[in-house]
Amino acid sequence: MDVLKTHVVHGGTLRYLSHDSAATGTAMKLSVFVPPGEAPFPVVIWLSGLTCTEDNFTTKAGAYEAAARLGLIVVAPDTSPRGEGVADDEAYDLGQGAGFYVDATEAPWAPHFCMETYVTRDLVELIDAEFPTNGRRAILGHSMGGHGALTLALNHPHLFASVSAFAPIASPTRCPWGEKALTAYLGPDRERWAQHDTALLIEAGVANGQFDDILIDQGDADGFLVEQLKPDLLTAAAEAAGQRLTLRMQPGYDHSYFFMASFIADHLAFHAKRLKA
Amino acid sequence: MDVLKTHVVHGGTLRYLSHDSAATGTAMKLSVFVPPGEAPFPVVIWLSGLTCTEDNFTTKAGAYEAAARLGLIVVAPDTSPRGEGVADDEAYDLGQGAGFYVDATEAPWAPHFCMETYVTRDLVELIDAEFPTNGRRAILGHSMGGHGALTLALNHPHLFASVSAFAPIASPTRCPWGEKALTAYLGPDRERWAQHDTALLIEAGVANGQFDDILIDQGDADGFLVEQLKPDLLTAAAEAAGQRLTLRMQPGYDHSYFFMASFIADHLAFHAKRLKA
Repeated sequence: MDVLKTHVVHGGTLRYLSHDSAATGTAMKLSVFVPPGEAPFPVVIWLSGLTCTEDNFTTKAGAYEAAARLGLIVVAPDTSPRGEGVADDEAYDLGQGAGFYVDATEAPWAPHFCMETYVTRDLVELIDAEFPTNGRRAILGHSMGGHGALTLALNHPHLFASVSAFAPIASPTRCPWGEKALTAYLGPDRERWAQHDTALLIEAGVANGQFDDILIDQGDADGFLVEQLKPDLLTAAAEAAGQRLTLRMQPGYDHSYFFMASFIADHLAFHAKRLKA
Repeated sequence: MDVLKTHVVHGGTLRYLSHDSAATGTAMKLSVFVPPGEAPFPVVIWLSGLTCTEDNFTTKAGAYEAAARLGLIVVAPDTSPRGEGVADDEAYDLGQGAGFYVDATEAPWAPHFCMETYVTRDLVELIDAEFPTNGRRAILGHSMGGHGALTLALNHPHLFASVSAFAPIASPTRCPWGEKALTAYLGPDRERWAQHDTALLIEAGVANGQFDDILIDQGDADGFLVEQLKPDLLTAAAEAAGQRLTLRMQPGYDHSYFFMASFIADHLAFHAKRLKA
C-alpha cells in the first residue's frame, strides 16, 4: 500500500492510497478517512458513478463532518481498473471509469475488469489489514455506484450490515446504460445479467431478512430518472418480496454531488445506527 | 445576467451565473447560493485563492449546510478576468486565476485586471439588484482570497459588517507571491503597494474600530506558511494598533479545501452573528 497524500479534515485523517489488486491485476487508487477518537471503528464503503475516480466523492460530498461525528471509517475506491494494457472505450459509459461492479467474462474486458471481486475481497481485506476496523461494514453509492452497492450487498450479505444508495441504476437489465455495459462485460446471455440487477435480486428474495431497511434517495429533477434509474422498479420489487425499502423522492434535486452533499449525513447516520447495533 | 446552471442543495438554490462587468470589461462568472426560508438575507462573499475559478469553493468547501441553516446568501466569484484579449502569464501565480483583488495600473494588465472595483462595485451591485438581500454583507476568503477579503474590508469598511480569512497572504509586500504580483499589477513603487497589504493597513489603523474582531484560521502543516503567508505579521500589527484579531493555528491542517471544509461552518457562524447584530 502506497500513501500518495495525507490531509487532516474535520479532526480525522484522510489518505489517498494506491495498492495492487489481484482481482484487477492493476494498481487501484482509493481514499480512506479515519475519524478522530478511540479505535476500532466500523467501515462505510462508498462506490461512485460513471466517469468518477476516487477523488469525486472525496472532495465534493462533504461527508467527513458526519463521519467524524459518528466515528466511521469512510472508503472511496476508483470505479474501474486503469493504466497501460487496460482496455478502454471512447464512450463515458463503458470501460475505464465505468466498471459497473461486475467481474467481466468477455474480451477485451475480462483480464482486468473484476470490480465485484475487487471490492468484496481485495478492498475489504486491505481495509481490515491496514486500518483500525472492528470488522463491521456498510456500503452505499451513487448511480452506477448505487447499483454496485445494492447488488454487492445483496450478493454478499455476510460482508455488509447495511446498504443504501443515491439515485441508483435500479435495474440495469432494463435501461440503456445497463444493457450496454452488461452486454460488453458479461456477453449477450441475459440470464447471466439477472444476478447484477437489484430489482430482480430483491424480487427473487436474495438476502431476504438480512437488511431491516434499505435507504434510497432520488432527486425528482434528476435528468436520468425516467430512462436510466427507474426507482419505481425497486419499490415494486421490495413490496412483492416483503423487503422493507425507504425511497425518498427529494423535490428539486438533480444527479450532481450537490444532491449527495445534501443527504450524505442522513445516510451515514442510517449506517452508523446499524453498524453499532 | 445569464444563469448557466441551477442546482438545489441543502434546500436552497445554487446558481452558476455570468454577467458583464464594466470594471474588468469582460464577462465574469460566479456562483450564488440563496438559502431556504423567508427573504431578505444578508450576503457573504467568498474570494478564492490562486488558480481557482468560481467552481472550487462551490464544489469543495461544503459551505451550504451551514449557509442554509444560518440563512446566508453565499457568493463566490472567479479570481480574475478571463477570455480572448485578456492578458495572461504561464505562471500559476500571475495573470488569469491570480488577480490579487487589486486594480492594475500597469501594462499589459491594466485594461482588464480590476478585481478591487469588480468585487466592491460590480459584484456587490449585481447581488443587491438580482437577489433578495437585506443590504448587509460580510467577506472572507482563502490565501490570495484571504488577502483580498481583508484588504477590501479594511479599505471599504462601509460595505462589510464582518471579515475573516483562511490562510491569508498577510503581507504581500513581504512575500514572493505578493512582490511578484504587486510589481506586475501596480509597478515597482512600493509605496503604492502598502494599501493592499493587510498587515500594513492594520498597523496604520485603517478602519480601526470598524470590526470588533477579525477571525483567521491557519493550518500549521500548511506548506506556504513560513515563506508566503506569515500570519504572525497580522497578530503583531493588530496588537500594535489595538485591533482585536483571533488567529487560530489549527494543528495538522494544510492549505487544501479539506482545511476550509473543516472550519467553514465556524466562519459562517462568526459572520451570521455580526450580520444579524
